[in-house]
Amino acid sequence: MTDLLWPGDERAGDLFSDAAVLAAMVRVEDAWLQALVTHGLAGTGGDLTKLVDAGDAAQIAADAESGGNPVIPLLGLLRERDPAAAPWIHTGLTSQDTLDTALALCLRDAVERLRADLATQIDALARLAGEHRATPMAGRTLTQHAVPITFGFKVAGWLESVLDARDALDVPIAARFGGAAGTLAAPAALAGSGPGALDLAAGSGPGALDLAATAAASLGLPHRARPAPFTRLADAFAGCTDAWGRIANDVLLGSRPEIGELAEARGGGSSAMPQKRNPVLSVLIRRAALAAPPLAATVHAAAAARVDERPDGAWHVEWATLRTLARRTVAAGSQTADLLTGLRVHADRMAATLAAARPGIDAEQRKIAGNTAEPYLGASDAIIDAALDRARGARP
Amino acid sequence: MTDLLWPGDERAGDLFSDAAVLAAMVRVEDAWLQALVTHGLAGTGGDLTKLVDAGDAAQIAADAESGGNPVIPLLGLLRERDPAAAPWIHTGLTSQDTLDTALALCLRDAVERLRADLATQIDALARLAGEHRATPMAGRTLTQHAVPITFGFKVAGWLESVLDARDALDVPIAARFGGAAGTLAAPAALAGSGPGALDLAAGSGPGALDLAATAAASLGLPHRARPAPFTRLADAFAGCTDAWGRIANDVLLGSRPEIGELAEARGGGSSAMPQKRNPVLSVLIRRAALAAPPLAATVHAAAAARVDERPDGAWHVEWATLRTLARRTVAAGSQTADLLTGLRVHADRMAATLAAARPGIDAEQRKIAGNTAEPYLGASDAIIDAALDRARGARP
Amino acid sequence: MTDLLWPGDERAGDLFSDAAVLAAMVRVEDAWLQALVTHGLAGTGGDLTKLVDAGDAAQIAADAESGGNPVIPLLGLLRERDPAAAPWIHTGLTSQDTLDTALALCLRDAVERLRADLATQIDALARLAGEHRATPMAGRTLTQHAVPITFGFKVAGWLESVLDARDALDVPIAARFGGAAGTLAAPAALAGSGPGALDLAAGSGPGALDLAATAAASLGLPHRARPAPFTRLADAFAGCTDAWGRIANDVLLGSRPEIGELAEARGGGSSAMPQKRNPVLSVLIRRAALAAPPLAATVHAAAAARVDERPDGAWHVEWATLRTLARRTVAAGSQTADLLTGLRVHADRMAATLAAARPGIDAEQRKIAGNTAEPYLGASDAIIDAALDRARGARP
Amino acid sequence: MTDLLWPGDERAGDLFSDAAVLAAMVRVEDAWLQALVTHGLAGTGGDLTKLVDAGDAAQIAADAESGGNPVIPLLGLLRERDPAAAPWIHTGLTSQDTLDTALALCLRDAVERLRADLATQIDALARLAGEHRATPMAGRTLTQHAVPITFGFKVAGWLESVLDARDALDVPIAARFGGAAGTLAAPAALAGSGPGALDLAAGSGPGALDLAATAAASLGLPHRARPAPFTRLADAFAGCTDAWGRIANDVLLGSRPEIGELAEARGGGSSAMPQKRNPVLSVLIRRAALAAPPLAATVHAAAAARVDERPDGAWHVEWATLRTLARRTVAAGSQTADLLTGLRVHADRMAATLAAARPGIDAEQRKIAGNTAEPYLGASDAIIDAALDRARGARP
Repeated sequence: MTDLLWPGDERAGDLFSDAAVLAAMVRVEDAWLQALVTHGLAGTGGDLTKLVDAGDAAQIAADAESGGNPVIPLLGLLRERDPAAAPWIHTGLTSQDTLDTALALCLRDAVERLRADLATQIDALARLAGEHRATPMAGRTLTQHAVPITFGFKVAGWLESVLDARDALDVPIAARFGGAAGTLAAPAALAGSGPGALDLAAGSGPGALDLAATAAASLGLPHRARPAPFTRLADAFAGCTDAWGRIANDVLLGSRPEIGELAEARGGGSSAMPQKRNPVLSVLIRRAALAAPPLAATVHAAAAARVDERPDGAWHVEWATLRTLARRTVAAGSQTADLLTGLRVHADRMAATLAAARPGIDAEQRKIAGNTAEPYLGASDAIIDAALDRARGARP
Repeated sequence: MTDLLWPGDERAGDLFSDAAVLAAMVRVEDAWLQALVTHGLAGTGGDLTKLVDAGDAAQIAADAESGGNPVIPLLGLLRERDPAAAPWIHTGLTSQDTLDTALALCLRDAVERLRADLATQIDALARLAGEHRATPMAGRTLTQHAVPITFGFKVAGWLESVLDARDALDVPIAARFGGAAGTLAAPAALAGSGPGALDLAAGSGPGALDLAATAAASLGLPHRARPAPFTRLADAFAGCTDAWGRIANDVLLGSRPEIGELAEARGGGSSAMPQKRNPVLSVLIRRAALAAPPLAATVHAAAAARVDERPDGAWHVEWATLRTLARRTVAAGSQTADLLTGLRVHADRMAATLAAARPGIDAEQRKIAGNTAEPYLGASDAIIDAALDRARGARP
Repeated sequence: MTDLLWPGDERAGDLFSDAAVLAAMVRVEDAWLQALVTHGLAGTGGDLTKLVDAGDAAQIAADAESGGNPVIPLLGLLRERDPAAAPWIHTGLTSQDTLDTALALCLRDAVERLRADLATQIDALARLAGEHRATPMAGRTLTQHAVPITFGFKVAGWLESVLDARDALDVPIAARFGGAAGTLAAPAALAGSGPGALDLAAGSGPGALDLAATAAASLGLPHRARPAPFTRLADAFAGCTDAWGRIANDVLLGSRPEIGELAEARGGGSSAMPQKRNPVLSVLIRRAALAAPPLAATVHAAAAARVDERPDGAWHVEWATLRTLARRTVAAGSQTADLLTGLRVHADRMAATLAAARPGIDAEQRKIAGNTAEPYLGASDAIIDAALDRARGARP
Repeated sequence: MTDLLWPGDERAGDLFSDAAVLAAMVRVEDAWLQALVTHGLAGTGGDLTKLVDAGDAAQIAADAESGGNPVIPLLGLLRERDPAAAPWIHTGLTSQDTLDTALALCLRDAVERLRADLATQIDALARLAGEHRATPMAGRTLTQHAVPITFGFKVAGWLESVLDARDALDVPIAARFGGAAGTLAAPAALAGSGPGALDLAAGSGPGALDLAATAAASLGLPHRARPAPFTRLADAFAGCTDAWGRIANDVLLGSRPEIGELAEARGGGSSAMPQKRNPVLSVLIRRAALAAPPLAATVHAAAAARVDERPDGAWHVEWATLRTLARRTVAAGSQTADLLTGLRVHADRMAATLAAARPGIDAEQRKIAGNTAEPYLGASDAIIDAALDRARGARP
């Protein structure tokens, strides 16, 4: 998967690619089929995951429009390639079961990727905060010099943002098996027609819920009978890019030649100007942060437009939006990890800026504390320590 | 506070009005002043909350532009009206401390209002789900008749959405006292200049943090030294309107004369057509659901645009955006509570629609279960029970 | 009208205030009534504009929820206060006629305000571009020094953006009189019941269209029978704040003490730091530019959600969104005019930055042109001249 | 190019695919090289368009991150494959010249595609409006029956929306050749180093502007030295999906079995329910209409975030956003053309609904006109005629 117009996209690898989505859909169908077999409701169930590969994606995509989703042509292919299992494939499910659960699998992968890169970022930030705990620099508010801070204190603020983003990723992800309208009616009814039988006595629900739970568990997911929108995950992705965008903005500013306090490990070149060393990672991270909020808003707009037992477009708009948002967030997470592990800190320039900002930058100190020679850093150390403790899991 | 162009806005009452925001800012200044007194750092601290009232809002608003925020003119007023306390008022704080903490107070009020209306909604939904557990109707997907469901099952889906929205409101809200750049430098330094003294020996931070915690505690909030964006709360508000928008959409559809399965307790009139009974609450709720996602996206965009120790515009855009989002969410929550407690359910029309949808709507049942006379409702009861249990707090 | 949380809002004055919207609605009703009289269809029509004033807004707002819009309670008031005209007031109209046309009036006022401030901006920019045509400075791309430019060249770029924004404001604004479903059925039918008579022979439409055109013309607007969404105007407003946001970003950067090339005429103070001179106007303009795109997107989302002859929420969400967007754009336009007329340019700092950027910043020149001593400004003069010509209307 | 998660995407064909973008970038480089040759500034210039093909896209995409855009690796490839032309390739340009002009070419293709589908839609709508000028149906407002209309009148409203969308597409699209900072400094300077010579006497600009105009003209575009954001085009795309979304919403409603007044030519099947005939095209069009406004808002947010002579992320976020928006708009335009040309109108169901809505739906008529037997359609015919005239170009 390549994207010429989103440099760095290849960092997301195969995540949520057409091939990955297709594989996830087949895994879902296979999990269901095996659950039917396990519960004695299907006569046979070969391994569906061998039947389809990335080479089938183009045809399935082309055929998806007529039914409005890619599950319908996929089922045709699966049944054609395993005629013995054909009567049982997808029996009791609806397209939304397959697609939403496949999205859940891809989203889980995205979250795992994000957690790994967040951990790298947190380590780098904790190291920087510790190393530069006493590196003085000018604090800035509304673009102007405010009061002295240390770079470690600034980094601890980045770290808090990243920790907030990490915590917000704790969103439940579930498989969804509900059948046509979410009632699990067809799975429940299978008891009367299958080769084996669920105990479908009075109420009959629990049996069908067991079946669904079996299928979900084989995918490593809890089960939910009815679809829930993926808004919280979309919000959490945007929360990540918010935190990284903030860092990128500070690095971009610090990389300006007039400031020169920060630099990326390796600057990017230019097609016209041989001398340029552009802070490319920060530029691309900032780009992702500009794009994410409207994508998350789209997932909300879809949730707000739900109607009926399956909505007429509000469901369909989620798929590609989540894919785009997830890939870009994962790519930006990887870029931010690289940015932070390689960040160069020019303490001399920080000191020079601070010196040049004097005496103005000490005006508050003089007002409050008089002309004390004490470093005016307040609770910086305690605040840095709290962030470091939180990074280590020692505080909530 | 009135809003001619947002009918129902008065349901939000004084929440987040200019008067309420002003009062909250004064409460914050007062809490800080009393904390200074408590810790022996201020000589005197009268009750600031008596000094300013709603009548001052217009002048403060007019004077806010020159410094870019309303705290600066407010401080002028407070100091003028209590000359004795003037030297201590706001000492050690910065505008963002006051404004962000005032926003936190208003947001906490909004959340409390929302929780109350959510509880009413949950009760009404639980009742409806129970009463109509066995009221058959046509399930619909992509606008077409799908399979039979019961209205209780549909309501249980609404209930799950509302419970999700309620759970997502569990977002920490904190006071923010950090001083000019978040280091608590000025409060820490006060020890040397105040009438009493903090123990500011080595590190000195904990003392200042204690002071901040005292002020925060008097407002009933935990303390955080540096500002965090309000994105999670904005997301949670949009999550509420998503859930209510979904319900409104279903009621709007059910209220169409050709369907007639649902009706609001009291229809709205028309300026032209005497016969009209418009589903006004649902219309207005749907309106709020259309507007919320872009507002939440604005809060994210602001978070992503942060730079420096206080950003140049990204902070400022949060204030009015949060106000608008909070008021509208509260108004929509109240409207949804009314909608649900008064909802009229026409089981006869549901039955008639289902009958007319036969035999088509039974096609899946016939395919799976043959021509069984059994009601084809699968695990509906168990799914309803799970939602009801969750509403009662009996399940997570 | 005050807005404590949007400093500078008072620059928009009474534009789109509840009082202004109310007055506009009454003007629309009055225009219609007088048109009925003119065409001999109403027996009497006193001046409705005297009957209601700003003091009625709160009650009308409170009563607006029951019918979903403020027109219905307004009509009750008008009929009560002019019993003689009561039978004719609003006859033939529907709420959307009144409200959409009132919005059109307010939007026209907003556009007029914007045009005036854009003209001031264009004058200021043209002057700056001319004065600084030969003021050398460092051009910057991706935060890094690129090649030398002049400040006049940079300003000409701002000017082109502002001219683009001005041109995009050329959007037709129309009155909307269509009756209940846009067919003008009631006005056409009035011929049979009114004291006079329209020529309603076969087709009858032209007579009713004449009536509508009369009413529209008295408001200075063309007529359109069916509502069109205000998306193009919303886009044009966002186009304005885009252009101003770009300028504000450059001023904010240029105002940083490390750069110091630009300054606002009057810096804003701080609640904590006596030395601060914050670039407040730029901060507040940038804020408006962050907020506008999601508001314009809301107007689009509403347009996309239309259904039926009047939609169930998509219409209602436009009103307050347009108000907020219009007021903020007008306020930002005024702030930008002030910013530009007062902008201070530090040519010495520009020269110093450029000198310090050498020889790196000349790398492209050396590559292309060798070590020529010629100023490396290419077609700057011609590009500046083109912008100045366009500002003077001498080029399209 | 396939997109498993956006069914119907293949309707956009190769538009804006990586291959198409790559080809467009090479066309731009070639146009520039040929212009250099034409003006005697380059010694040789073979046909660059033969040197690179779609097979190179993946490598260029992978290499794009290090410099932040795909132009830099593309240039490496071109120079490697045509060593003779290497010294002249891209000389005087910057990456943004190449990429923005390539985007302009792709956007022009998109607009051409849209115009063709809009013409088809307009023909279909004009035909439907004419055929159903007298087909009575219930007008609906706020979901309820309002007054009688005809289906032709309703269609004329759709037509007006589509005509508005078509008119809004009239946005200038320009090539952009400005060099590193937009001054055309390098092209101007080439006069001293090239094998031939521009007339670079005093001012020198016009010569460089001639060169740029030559290159632009060979691409069929006007020239603009500095980049302008693509906001107006993005707005126009969203304007298209707004108009189509409105139509889709009405078709979705009319396709509900309880209403049954409209149907797509060919319903979509279901993976679970054999009887289903889903209005798939309308579902997918509605989906596109939900997604477009936030994408257009992203382009505005980028425009508002501009800073310097080339911004640090705000430029980069435009590329993929425009691609996605353009492809989806083109696909939705094609789907809407199919929807409208195949739309089935059930006049009998319309008549039945109207009959069932009586006498309520005649309440306004009775109030205004008494119990006249006249059809209550007002100026419908004139309004339809105006739309048809506009469609034929007979009215503005």
